Amino acid sequence: MTIFTRIIKGEIPSHKVYEDSHVYAFLDINPVARGHTLVVPKEPAVTLGELSDEAAAAVGRVMPRICRAVQKATGCGAYNVLQNNGVMAGQAVGHVHFHVIPKYERGAGFSSTWPSAAVDHAAAGELAKVIAAEMAATTA
Amino acid sequence: MTIFTRIIKGEIPSHKVYEDSHVYAFLDINPVARGHTLVVPKEPAVTLGELSDEAAAAVGRVMPRICRAVQKATGCGAYNVLQNNGVMAGQAVGHVHFHVIPKYERGAGFSSTWPSAAVDHAAAGELAKVIAAEMAATTA
Repeated sequence: MTIFTRIIKGEIPSHKVYEDSHVYAFLDINPVARGHTLVVPKEPAVTLGELSDEAAAAVGRVMPRICRAVQKATGCGAYNVLQNNGVMAGQAVGHVHFHVIPKYERGAGFSSTWPSAAVDHAAAGELAKVIAAEMAATTA
Repeated sequence: MTIFTRIIKGEIPSHKVYEDSHVYAFLDINPVARGHTLVVPKEPAVTLGELSDEAAAAVGRVMPRICRAVQKATGCGAYNVLQNNGVMAGQAVGHVHFHVIPKYERGAGFSSTWPSAAVDHAAAGELAKVIAAEMAATTA
């Protein structure tokens, strides 16, 4: 059981901002910026790819309202939503969570490195077919 | 109309990996890593906070399957999901999109700066109340 399940159960206190039957949202206690909020499905999947469709839809449905509430309460001009899967990708707690991180000014708070390069269209076309085939093969 | 609406309409070609009545997903043509996929609601909202609950739920529902398909097709060991809102937060196209970015090895591909600090619990408790009140006041 992760610390998030214990928070959801109320065994560990949190600065809760929202709860429904599928979702629990609270302030990160090590925020990158003021108002940094964690949105957590109650279902204890480790990664987004392991989460049920129902739980993922419930998180998706409430995200616009949470984003608006965070923006109105903090006055931030912009915000990032980040969700890491796997320790190598920076996931620190093994229970799916979305970070909603207010951005107040350039050069402060969250930022990302973006080492992009133009795609090889032939290779991309082949890869897209493989991903599409995996999508068709995966069960809901 | 953004380039994403033109891609969804088929006016601009794309390496499509998935489409349903609410969602269109395709490979980024400037990938941060092989298999970098964009998941886009057909509804042309600019930010996640402006997206309808229905469209956001539809995107959420398909995300686990897209993550699994990208992971199976690429063999990546981890992945990040990122969604930027506002130019200051790095949003490059004014139409909501989720990046699914495979992570293959440490020190390569996507990474983020994370200037976190321990929260002031008294201030956080007050802010959580304000966000919760905004959540209660916002309409679905």
